[in-house]
Amino acid sequence: MTTILALVKQNEALMQLRTALPADVRLLTADQATAADLAQVDIIYGWNETDRKVLALPQQQVKWIQTISAGVDSLPLAQLKQQHILLSNTSGIHAESIAESVIGMLLMHVRGLQESAVQQTQSQWHKPEHHQLTTLKAKQLLIYGTGHIGQRIAELANALGMQVSGVNRSGHPVDHFGATYSMATVKSALRQADVIVNVMPLTATTKHFFNADFFAQLQKQPIFVNVGRGPSVDTSALITALQHQQVGFAALDVFEDEPLPADHPLWQQKNVLLMPHISGIFDGYMRAANQIFMNNLQSFLTQGQLAQNQVELDRGY
Amino acid sequence: MTTILALVKQNEALMQLRTALPADVRLLTADQATAADLAQVDIIYGWNETDRKVLALPQQQVKWIQTISAGVDSLPLAQLKQQHILLSNTSGIHAESIAESVIGMLLMHVRGLQESAVQQTQSQWHKPEHHQLTTLKAKQLLIYGTGHIGQRIAELANALGMQVSGVNRSGHPVDHFGATYSMATVKSALRQADVIVNVMPLTATTKHFFNADFFAQLQKQPIFVNVGRGPSVDTSALITALQHQQVGFAALDVFEDEPLPADHPLWQQKNVLLMPHISGIFDGYMRAANQIFMNNLQSFLTQGQLAQNQVELDRGY
Repeated sequence: MTTILALVKQNEALMQLRTALPADVRLLTADQATAADLAQVDIIYGWNETDRKVLALPQQQVKWIQTISAGVDSLPLAQLKQQHILLSNTSGIHAESIAESVIGMLLMHVRGLQESAVQQTQSQWHKPEHHQLTTLKAKQLLIYGTGHIGQRIAELANALGMQVSGVNRSGHPVDHFGATYSMATVKSALRQADVIVNVMPLTATTKHFFNADFFAQLQKQPIFVNVGRGPSVDTSALITALQHQQVGFAALDVFEDEPLPADHPLWQQKNVLLMPHISGIFDGYMRAANQIFMNNLQSFLTQGQLAQNQVELDRGY
Repeated sequence: MTTILALVKQNEALMQLRTALPADVRLLTADQATAADLAQVDIIYGWNETDRKVLALPQQQVKWIQTISAGVDSLPLAQLKQQHILLSNTSGIHAESIAESVIGMLLMHVRGLQESAVQQTQSQWHKPEHHQLTTLKAKQLLIYGTGHIGQRIAELANALGMQVSGVNRSGHPVDHFGATYSMATVKSALRQADVIVNVMPLTATTKHFFNADFFAQLQKQPIFVNVGRGPSVDTSALITALQHQQVGFAALDVFEDEPLPADHPLWQQKNVLLMPHISGIFDGYMRAANQIFMNNLQSFLTQGQLAQNQVELDRGY
């Protein structure tokens, strides 16, 4: 008997998953698992504080954790490595929804739609001047992170006629990017960027990567978009950069503190669009996550290996 | 001496136009033109109520009106025809900005961005459920109007993975549309549409085209977008259709009454995005309009004809 502990929402998608499992596999949810059950968990699907308790049990036998997120920065990666626990994520399933969100945020800003939506709440009709609205066409877009999500953003931005460059560790070329740079070679492209998007994973290298030094290099008051991870941005530095017009506008879906506290200064900051960490969410999300999980479950049960989306624990993604 | 009356904003673009004119052409603005001047106007650039006064002068000699809009429904077309006045518009220059606006509105809705922007005004963090957000990918889009604007919308929607169909008078095929229909043959595609966009010009045929009978045919609670002309929609019928969930969401940039009166019921209607007729506006607008005007001016002065964008007065576009 193999035991799966599912730490995901109990909905139709989970019911479908349960009916699709092999006969000798049982699936527990946190509310129905006894302490004795938790000691027998082999596989965890999802991640929350219950996992930490399970992993701390002296007699626990977890061998694999499948998250339902792309980022795994909240997991104790060193501990997983020490305990020889496999880890896989759902990287890839968010590409479409995050890319659509990023293009949506950009269009919302340059086409005056955010201002319209806010005016609408006050029954106000106020027409901007021509020079206050622009188009994305021919603008310079620089994307930090050239994985699934970055590539799909680049593809859509190309269709809109943007000039798309990317940044990755080595500067190696990637489909859909007109140019790619390493962190060391990007400086000139960075100065010319009209739009900067972060989709990098959170690692020791990317923590507070977007800081005062970074923002001081910008020359075109670009739009800054963060759909990666909140702690990649030094939020205080970003607010200062907005106030000093080093950054013209910021569209943020992720934050150092989530949920963003009600008294956080970002709520009062002008020239921002704040989203409650939703860019990766879509109606088919759990069906897509289940597909990865079932594919990995089959290879795990037959070969003790994961078929896809295994995380390199040292690297963190 | 040829006299141009410019009824456009007096800004840098107009100054540039003035310096580019041939020596024997003078350009008047409404505030500096005397009654005697108005009687000598040969060409009008722009359209507002001053034009009607000029055209009513018994001794007037206007031969050509160049609008700075695509739609010419507010002009007295029959009178222009009777007085043998040429008319040209700026159709084409709005395609990029309107297409970006339409895609922006759609993404704003399906990706939860409008709700985020409204919550932001109240410092509120509220995360929707997965099923409340979706993507445009694989959705059925039906565009009424397959001209410049409709084609650019179709092109961008294709890049987003939408299934794009169009409606025009004959149903003839058009680039970027997977299928095209006439009004008579579209019924089945209309029932299956997830998104309906109107970019048709306003004519006797299209006035109140989107009425109760139209909305009653819809089966998938589609998003309805109007970036064409306000009177193409029977607004009361649209509000009823929203309330009866025949239409799931409406994004409207144009209205039967503009500016939309402060007590108009649309301001209080749920599931709408209201914009102050801005989808065609962008920072390079007057430069683009000037290019068309200068091109037409040259051919008008040398050959008495218009090089581009001449409106068929009988047809109305």
